[in-house]
Amino acid sequence: MTLIRELVLIGSGRVASQMANAFIHAGISIRAVYSRTPAHAAVLAKSLAVPAVTSLAEIPTDADAYIFAVSDSALPEMLAKMPAVNGVLMHTSGTVGLDVFPDRFEKTAVFYPLQTFSKEKPADFEQIPLLIESKKPAVFSAIKALAQKLSNKVLEANSEQRKQIHLSAVFVSNFPNLLFYIAQQLLQEKGLDFNVLKPLIAETAHKLDYLSPAQAQTGPALRRDEAVLQAHQEMLGNHPEWEKIYTLLSEEIKKIKS
Amino acid sequence: MTLIRELVLIGSGRVASQMANAFIHAGISIRAVYSRTPAHAAVLAKSLAVPAVTSLAEIPTDADAYIFAVSDSALPEMLAKMPAVNGVLMHTSGTVGLDVFPDRFEKTAVFYPLQTFSKEKPADFEQIPLLIESKKPAVFSAIKALAQKLSNKVLEANSEQRKQIHLSAVFVSNFPNLLFYIAQQLLQEKGLDFNVLKPLIAETAHKLDYLSPAQAQTGPALRRDEAVLQAHQEMLGNHPEWEKIYTLLSEEIKKIKS
Repeated sequence: MTLIRELVLIGSGRVASQMANAFIHAGISIRAVYSRTPAHAAVLAKSLAVPAVTSLAEIPTDADAYIFAVSDSALPEMLAKMPAVNGVLMHTSGTVGLDVFPDRFEKTAVFYPLQTFSKEKPADFEQIPLLIESKKPAVFSAIKALAQKLSNKVLEANSEQRKQIHLSAVFVSNFPNLLFYIAQQLLQEKGLDFNVLKPLIAETAHKLDYLSPAQAQTGPALRRDEAVLQAHQEMLGNHPEWEKIYTLLSEEIKKIKS
Repeated sequence: MTLIRELVLIGSGRVASQMANAFIHAGISIRAVYSRTPAHAAVLAKSLAVPAVTSLAEIPTDADAYIFAVSDSALPEMLAKMPAVNGVLMHTSGTVGLDVFPDRFEKTAVFYPLQTFSKEKPADFEQIPLLIESKKPAVFSAIKALAQKLSNKVLEANSEQRKQIHLSAVFVSNFPNLLFYIAQQLLQEKGLDFNVLKPLIAETAHKLDYLSPAQAQTGPALRRDEAVLQAHQEMLGNHPEWEKIYTLLSEEIKKIKS
């Protein structure tokens, strides 16, 4: 197995565009971009100054690798339509196993970036953990070398480990962001500015640099301050779902042993 | 009303010790420290190189101000035992109103730092919003000048506004920290290291510098990726409370309009 020097990108969403930029920055060529939505592929390909193709049948079949940055549900259908190629096939999903690849492909791998991506801001891949997996040692070496060109945090993780990390990632990223949204709505209802909470949000994340989550826990539920808990529940009276969230999370905080 | 140049500190917990350090750093003298637990007052007073007193009857009655950094539930009882003084009485609670102060005190105020404090690490008060309130303009001017010596983010907030901000603070700090704890436990069960999630946690907070929470939302619930949602719920089968949290928060994410 030699090095992966160039690849075909399949997908045009947030992950696809952020990874494409990171590959180009690391000196990896993008041979072509394909997306099921040709207009999206065209826009991304133009921004990267690389060719777009409008069907999987048109993609170059002699590339070193093919990276699928598409939704989990789209993956099986797209792989079924994939022409015969000799390069490495990789997907970027946290939850899908290596067994998603049809048996006719011999060189298969997972290349999962553990991060929440925005279209608006280039991601700093150096700090993004890349979780990689392949059953073939030669393929593993090739994708490891590729990953190390992008990131200082390359980790081998099998499918079971990756799924658990992905589940945990939902708890530390998607769910906290929902709670930020609820807080913003609560402040907006009283004409207050969400910016006042930003130093607190930053410190809550930053505390983990020197404390475990159990040590870092604070708040009325941990102090068992029932008067405050009850007052807060009453303030949420107009939002029964948020009150349920408040109660459920507070009960869980009471179980933490610090 | 003149300036507050020195004060008596009542309390010895995290908030009390962090505020004491910030006051001293800003050139405000601590005349004495009192706590209901004399041993705690002695330790804090020693670390600050200021006197400790063992009863409220012993505190200097000619100080410019008295700051109560104690639990909400302890406040009424301690105020009832407070000797007659001419200085400003302040509490530091997010939830308690100005009406907690007995009528015999004329100069009363709230001085609420919106932050999560650790004993282990000195807080950078310059970046901490200080929410202040007083009904008397002269008292308000005095505590505003005091607050501005500590922080660049001094805001006036009445009791209703402060309570809403405090409730929102629980959503953006205490609850996300609980979710970090759950994630850490999930990883630990599979022998995986929580550190792998730290770049994601940092970026989730950092995204709010350029996106609203609604714009920043990502994840399987937002994509309505039911296969992933169901797989995650099954993975949480041994933790019915965490599965409930997962389901409730995922349903709420589906309602976000970005």
